[in-house]
Amino acid sequence: MPKGLEHLFNPKSIAVVGVSDKPGKLSAIIMESLLESGFPGMVYPVNPRHTTVGGQRCYQSIEAIGADIDLAILAVPASEVIPVLRNAGGTVKSAVVISGGFAESGAQGIATEKELAALARKSGLRIIGPNCMGIFDTISKVDTFFIPGSRIRRPARGGLSIISQSGSFAATALDELASEGIGVARVISYGNMCDVNESDCLDFLREDVHTSAVALYIESVDDGRRFVESASRCSLKKPVLAVKVGRRDSGASAARSHTGALAGRYEAYKAAFRKAGVIELEGYEDFMCGCKAFGRGTSAKGNRVVIITDGGGVGVNLADLCESAGLKVVPVPDNVRERLASVFPPYFSIGNPMDLTGSATDDMFADALDASFSGDSFDIAIVAVLWGPPGLTDDLPEMLAQKAMLFGSKPLIICSPGGDYARGRAGLFRRHGQTVFATPEGAARAASILARSAEMVKRRVKKDG
Amino acid sequence: MPKGLEHLFNPKSIAVVGVSDKPGKLSAIIMESLLESGFPGMVYPVNPRHTTVGGQRCYQSIEAIGADIDLAILAVPASEVIPVLRNAGGTVKSAVVISGGFAESGAQGIATEKELAALARKSGLRIIGPNCMGIFDTISKVDTFFIPGSRIRRPARGGLSIISQSGSFAATALDELASEGIGVARVISYGNMCDVNESDCLDFLREDVHTSAVALYIESVDDGRRFVESASRCSLKKPVLAVKVGRRDSGASAARSHTGALAGRYEAYKAAFRKAGVIELEGYEDFMCGCKAFGRGTSAKGNRVVIITDGGGVGVNLADLCESAGLKVVPVPDNVRERLASVFPPYFSIGNPMDLTGSATDDMFADALDASFSGDSFDIAIVAVLWGPPGLTDDLPEMLAQKAMLFGSKPLIICSPGGDYARGRAGLFRRHGQTVFATPEGAARAASILARSAEMVKRRVKKDG
Repeated sequence: MPKGLEHLFNPKSIAVVGVSDKPGKLSAIIMESLLESGFPGMVYPVNPRHTTVGGQRCYQSIEAIGADIDLAILAVPASEVIPVLRNAGGTVKSAVVISGGFAESGAQGIATEKELAALARKSGLRIIGPNCMGIFDTISKVDTFFIPGSRIRRPARGGLSIISQSGSFAATALDELASEGIGVARVISYGNMCDVNESDCLDFLREDVHTSAVALYIESVDDGRRFVESASRCSLKKPVLAVKVGRRDSGASAARSHTGALAGRYEAYKAAFRKAGVIELEGYEDFMCGCKAFGRGTSAKGNRVVIITDGGGVGVNLADLCESAGLKVVPVPDNVRERLASVFPPYFSIGNPMDLTGSATDDMFADALDASFSGDSFDIAIVAVLWGPPGLTDDLPEMLAQKAMLFGSKPLIICSPGGDYARGRAGLFRRHGQTVFATPEGAARAASILARSAEMVKRRVKKDG
Repeated sequence: MPKGLEHLFNPKSIAVVGVSDKPGKLSAIIMESLLESGFPGMVYPVNPRHTTVGGQRCYQSIEAIGADIDLAILAVPASEVIPVLRNAGGTVKSAVVISGGFAESGAQGIATEKELAALARKSGLRIIGPNCMGIFDTISKVDTFFIPGSRIRRPARGGLSIISQSGSFAATALDELASEGIGVARVISYGNMCDVNESDCLDFLREDVHTSAVALYIESVDDGRRFVESASRCSLKKPVLAVKVGRRDSGASAARSHTGALAGRYEAYKAAFRKAGVIELEGYEDFMCGCKAFGRGTSAKGNRVVIITDGGGVGVNLADLCESAGLKVVPVPDNVRERLASVFPPYFSIGNPMDLTGSATDDMFADALDASFSGDSFDIAIVAVLWGPPGLTDDLPEMLAQKAMLFGSKPLIICSPGGDYARGRAGLFRRHGQTVFATPEGAARAASILARSAEMVKRRVKKDG
């Protein structure tokens, strides 16, 4: 594990510096989140301008607390960050610096950030930020994301961890995952990365037993070689997904390449991802699909997809999408066809895609999934339910969820496109633990990501064998 | 206008054949829809097994009505379709044949469908179907879509018309558009197209004053030359968008190419679309984006996009997406930059994308849009609102809508990604007439479709000049 990161991800004591009485202030929201999240350790408010905050004693400085502080959360003006940390000396082990006004804001900020980086290097203090949202962690119950839960919902505990250079991207993803009923383990918004960067986080999450998959949002990487090493080691143990944005920003990045940073050209990132066994994601939609696909702990063994639907057109569209995403829409084997022919109306065409037509019932969907998954013909099922047919009821989500449970190693991906009624039924699927997409494209993307992950695992086994 | 189609799209009298007393039966749902939609003409229930239906007199046959029937809607077994229409003789002008059991169901069905096609050709009777959902028309108030409104919502009146080979695709699109608050003019599910096909519909919609844009869903075209002609003529008057699915189905389609049908190869469709001035759509998501982009009567004059957001990461992602979709993310001109610098905090970077950061307020978004659209630098604005910043309130949607109204010829596309809170705010934007997407990709797709349409118009003007 990288040195000192345990203090960031498993702190026993936290100081919130710059804390305020005023509701709505960043530090007040952070204090509230820490109390609400059930963080079990000590939380010390620090602000020289207050003696109490919310009825609790407020300390003049970190050193005035008189105890070792594992994690200091700083929401103070940029100019105060270094004095606060310097004065605290050895009593602080790690810090999340929320404050902006550093390298992103011109010459003065760049100089201050260099000084902050030097302080971290010299003292061994590990710093996330500055200019970040910090940590949302369902394991340690640390939450420094300074947006109230009424605007950005927090997900429940899960196995997915997220590393994001952009705070707003991470917050938006968190919010969407929470609304989709997908849990997370650790979410890190690392901002300007004056100290802790994406590679440190990868090294930590590789060894983290609570993390089963990692998704990264990257704008730039400073040390390309280290990134490839860290990502390669992590992807040997768990799926690593990554999106690189700012692809066209070749000029600005080129200027940095002489410092040994990975070339800013998108093609270089693409090559690095491939080399490191990282599954590349295309953008926001793909990122969310990846999070949703792995967020429920699912994984696939291969890329053979069966498409089951009651909408002929959507089935054909899905077949197109799957094929162009590298999935195999293989034919239905004879024994499956025969088994289904005995229970389906004679005018059904039992192919792949399998079109249950407007005569579809809950049972037909369940039978089709059961028969398809029973042998060894398919690795993934996409079930696209169009809710028009009168034979479909609100029992369908539970019935499919139960069938899916019997085939634990074969993921079921639900597509429920349409308006209010379909969106309501999508909620039923989610309540039964299913991964749901509102469009054929979303379902195909998720299937493709799972299949690419399976491919990575196979390649690795071959290499090792 | 193609001969006889006015009876399908402007009928004064309708016979619903095969009508039943039982709620839930297709014909009962169609009867109900016709009554609910406010169809102003006469509606005659027909069924030899009933004398009354729902308290209304039921006729033994179409000819027993004793009046000319503009449109007969047939929801009877396949074997009864031809006898019903033959017996009705010249009293029926057009028909929608909902019934399945034709060419899609084997040799017997193929033979029956050929006979039905011959009947149409000889008698001049215009037939939509068989094996279709028929017509949903907010102008004539005809609704033969046989799924209750509780499952598939019907959109309000609008300018967009849809021509779809797949009924379930059309129904799902209708449902989603209704839930998004987008209106439609005429929606035609033409199924097996024994008579009326996509080209007939294009010819009709070209002259239809109620239709401002046309979106097509195509699986196959029988007469490629006619399609190119009809689409070319229509695209001269209004935007024509089309998605072709079943792209990999090269084998089956090739078998038909000797009959003069457009080659089944996807590349041939692609070329035909280009030749005909049709804007090609990629699949379901793109189709919905196109419908949403044109569904509010918007159009763009060019492809220069300004991206305004409070989420740095989403802004960078949007810039990537726009550039790779052929849009131009041009620099903010000096006068706009100066104007905004005088009202924005000094640490804002006023570029494109324009990042209003977590300090964003409603006013800043409105100012940014106002300044960007004031000159002639941008054709389209994408405003991506991440709802974290406390300075953003529920007034923002109305404020932006008012600004957008001042620049009627420059479309504003809203992106509101995230969970429940963001989805609620998206609803506010919709209520103020704005086109909203839940992802950066959706917004970029819509902008790209509008820009491609502008490009088509320019090319046409050049040609004509």
